Amino acid sequence: MGKEGKGNFQLKTPKGTRDWSGTDVVLREQIFSTITSVFKRHGGVTIDTPVFELKETLTGKYGEDSKLIYDLADQGGEICSLRYDLTVPFARFCAQNAVQNIKRYHIAKVYRRDQPAMTKGRMREFYQCDFDIAGQFDPMLPDAEILRIVKEVFEELPEWKGKFIIKINHRKILDGIFQICGVPTEKIRTISSAVDKLDKSPWDEVRREMVEDKGLDPEVADKIWTYAQLKGGKDVVEKLQGMPEVVANESAKQGLESMALLCDYLEIFDVMPALSVDMSLARGLDYYTGVIYEVVTEGSAPPASAKDVAKKEKKQKKSADPDEDRSNDPTIGVGSVAAGGRYDELVGMFSGKPIPCVGISFGVDRIFSITKARLGTAQPIRPTEVDVFIMAFGGGKDFTGMLPERMAVAKQLWDAGIKAEYLWKTKPKLQNQFKAAENGKVPWAIILGEEELKAGKIKIKEMGLPEGHPEKDGVEVGKANLVDEIQSRLKGKASLPDRTTA
Amino acid sequence: MGKEGKGNFQLKTPKGTRDWSGTDVVLREQIFSTITSVFKRHGGVTIDTPVFELKETLTGKYGEDSKLIYDLADQGGEICSLRYDLTVPFARFCAQNAVQNIKRYHIAKVYRRDQPAMTKGRMREFYQCDFDIAGQFDPMLPDAEILRIVKEVFEELPEWKGKFIIKINHRKILDGIFQICGVPTEKIRTISSAVDKLDKSPWDEVRREMVEDKGLDPEVADKIWTYAQLKGGKDVVEKLQGMPEVVANESAKQGLESMALLCDYLEIFDVMPALSVDMSLARGLDYYTGVIYEVVTEGSAPPASAKDVAKKEKKQKKSADPDEDRSNDPTIGVGSVAAGGRYDELVGMFSGKPIPCVGISFGVDRIFSITKARLGTAQPIRPTEVDVFIMAFGGGKDFTGMLPERMAVAKQLWDAGIKAEYLWKTKPKLQNQFKAAENGKVPWAIILGEEELKAGKIKIKEMGLPEGHPEKDGVEVGKANLVDEIQSRLKGKASLPDRTTA
Repeated sequence: MGKEGKGNFQLKTPKGTRDWSGTDVVLREQIFSTITSVFKRHGGVTIDTPVFELKETLTGKYGEDSKLIYDLADQGGEICSLRYDLTVPFARFCAQNAVQNIKRYHIAKVYRRDQPAMTKGRMREFYQCDFDIAGQFDPMLPDAEILRIVKEVFEELPEWKGKFIIKINHRKILDGIFQICGVPTEKIRTISSAVDKLDKSPWDEVRREMVEDKGLDPEVADKIWTYAQLKGGKDVVEKLQGMPEVVANESAKQGLESMALLCDYLEIFDVMPALSVDMSLARGLDYYTGVIYEVVTEGSAPPASAKDVAKKEKKQKKSADPDEDRSNDPTIGVGSVAAGGRYDELVGMFSGKPIPCVGISFGVDRIFSITKARLGTAQPIRPTEVDVFIMAFGGGKDFTGMLPERMAVAKQLWDAGIKAEYLWKTKPKLQNQFKAAENGKVPWAIILGEEELKAGKIKIKEMGLPEGHPEKDGVEVGKANLVDEIQSRLKGKASLPDRTTA
Repeated sequence: MGKEGKGNFQLKTPKGTRDWSGTDVVLREQIFSTITSVFKRHGGVTIDTPVFELKETLTGKYGEDSKLIYDLADQGGEICSLRYDLTVPFARFCAQNAVQNIKRYHIAKVYRRDQPAMTKGRMREFYQCDFDIAGQFDPMLPDAEILRIVKEVFEELPEWKGKFIIKINHRKILDGIFQICGVPTEKIRTISSAVDKLDKSPWDEVRREMVEDKGLDPEVADKIWTYAQLKGGKDVVEKLQGMPEVVANESAKQGLESMALLCDYLEIFDVMPALSVDMSLARGLDYYTGVIYEVVTEGSAPPASAKDVAKKEKKQKKSADPDEDRSNDPTIGVGSVAAGGRYDELVGMFSGKPIPCVGISFGVDRIFSITKARLGTAQPIRPTEVDVFIMAFGGGKDFTGMLPERMAVAKQLWDAGIKAEYLWKTKPKLQNQFKAAENGKVPWAIILGEEELKAGKIKIKEMGLPEGHPEKDGVEVGKANLVDEIQSRLKGKASLPDRTTA
């Protein structure tokens, strides 16, 4: 083999995909772990569905975006496609297993043949972290729980506290407003899609789309605009409830009652400060039937109040370069970092028996890009979790390298569950062993010397101590107590990937 | 939507795939977690490669098995295939990034269009857990580390200690023996494949394949058989080293020296008791160049010595029903549960610059099936990790349900990181709240009563206490100390999925 292979291969991953390695993957694992611990705190159970589904399972669920679905080649047998999100497979799972109620989370990759924009974390293969609640419960209680989960996740992720807002709206309020404004029933979904673009395009542009592309009466469009500008806290709900033409509409009235109840619950859960009731939020997907929400964030500016964040974010979006995909600032133009809502009829599309559902999907790859940019180089991440590097010290020609002794110590530490390495060389130089420990940011060294070992002694040294520190050269401990001595030293410091030796 | 959807869909996952949910997924996560902790103990870093690769990346790596590769449909752009294992993507990653050395682990799904056998854990979509070491090091040191990892994993998995053996051989010894026996060079790989079937088929059958199908001289075949029967500990290496015709062969001589050195290292690491040097082990894949190994296991019999295990396992294989795929015993005929070896030239197939590699792949789905069968119902697994269920108690028409109070307590617990749930009902019956807590195997209940709350008291109750226990009816604590009281009660017991309330 070998040589003839050279040059025959394109050494790359497919377009829109990438390898994850090094400290990137360590940081991403930390993000997964934070999110998972919140999910478990709320009683979440995980399910794992196949990466591909029968093609017909996905058909008719994504509207125009269906063209972005990856199909598997027909190699005989069933026709399958890669999953486009985790929601439709979840609905299929609920229908197939006649699930009555479940709080499930699912962290997995999904696939979209979209135009990739690497720096923003928009890829063809990317992770989603979903939490969904299926089942019949008293109104707005699962919805409140989901929003509380959103708050906990972003407050616990590094560098996100106070830097996010949850935009929220309700499909019934929106539909009611469209009716009040005089949008013909058959145009409601397409006009809703146009409204949803208000976070990326100015009103003039959206109005043009409504009137010219979608044939809406200009007066109707302008009426929509008077409502679409409303945003704030619970006051927006109360303001709308004070408008006679709004409460006269049954859909709007019901939606507003739901929103008012939800706000009461979110008050108890202390989520309201992060919330922005926003009449311009419409969400693209067809299947939502109740509350809808998405989480947006500022760039890397210092903490600001939710309203400032909203203003700033809006401004950034509006001034965004149309070629923003080529921009290198991962915090501009990423869109939402989490989104979801209530979808009470999706499961029924499979089984004929609807099960009410509400959920949230975290865009982890986007969250990763922003978190990484915010952390900068301030918090170096350890590449591995190794706590101890075992070295041998000896000078001159007679140095044996003490390989069996180093291996025996490694075995002793592994037996005790301690993370340890040694250099895979028979006769390593001391400086190469130190270099390996430093490269791995390993916090402790065990140094074996032939004389010391004969006397039953082993040296333990904390790496990276400053000159002049009393233990700079390490301390000798009895060979028999080695594991205890190491364990008591490790105890004080959590063995986490983000611990540094500084 | 709703009704018209009914019956239009096949409610299933694609052939050879399945959903994972409930306690199955909890047990599988525990297995992942055990394996990952061993990988990290040895300084492993994880990488994550795309689920599909350029088709040409996979071409020419799997011999006959290439027909089992899943291709993506040609939807314009690059031609891609789902990964068949994690080794070839790892080699591509090393070549692409000019990796000098790495200890990487990767836990992910791979795809093979094989005949599925669900009960044995043989699926078209299944997980592999791989640990590989790339780089130039002193002989047999990375190899010894891999085998130590194998030992740690199977000793730490529940119900595996003492129930596995690691079969090991060396390609250079095998090749040398084939040369000594007179196998023509061009037939060495195909005869090697035939020898590899000795764990599934009797010698007569394998001999027939060699002679009739592959045109080998019968005398040569019988000579192979005299060597292929050798198995044991380091004595097998020493026996072969004592045979003049064997050590006269350069390949065999080198292979035996490597094996002897490896056995010395494995002695220090205490791996030898689990090892069986086995001249009938050949491994199918072409790319191995040095040591090869696979882990086999007995059924569900009580612990036995490694040799007994080997004997029993052999017997089971031989007497296996040819229709074993329909058998319901997941421990029969699953083949190896982990396998690997040294492959020094695979990376060179991509870059022209070979990097020595050695690795192991754990077949997690098979390990899961066997572990589940061994555990039986002896150790019930908690479906969620919820520690506290918050209830309200009240009788008669005036019972308010205390929803805001239950929500406020939930918020208080979540703020403190405590896993807690309450029933999403405005006015729940006490018995339904208890039932929900019992279904979730939640160990603690907090019970709110209107009178008690007015007096600043809240009741904490441990679930599942026997009749007559002094705390059977719970204990009252001060409202202000609730979080502390709960935390101190949770502390004594680890909050693990496998903790039961019994």
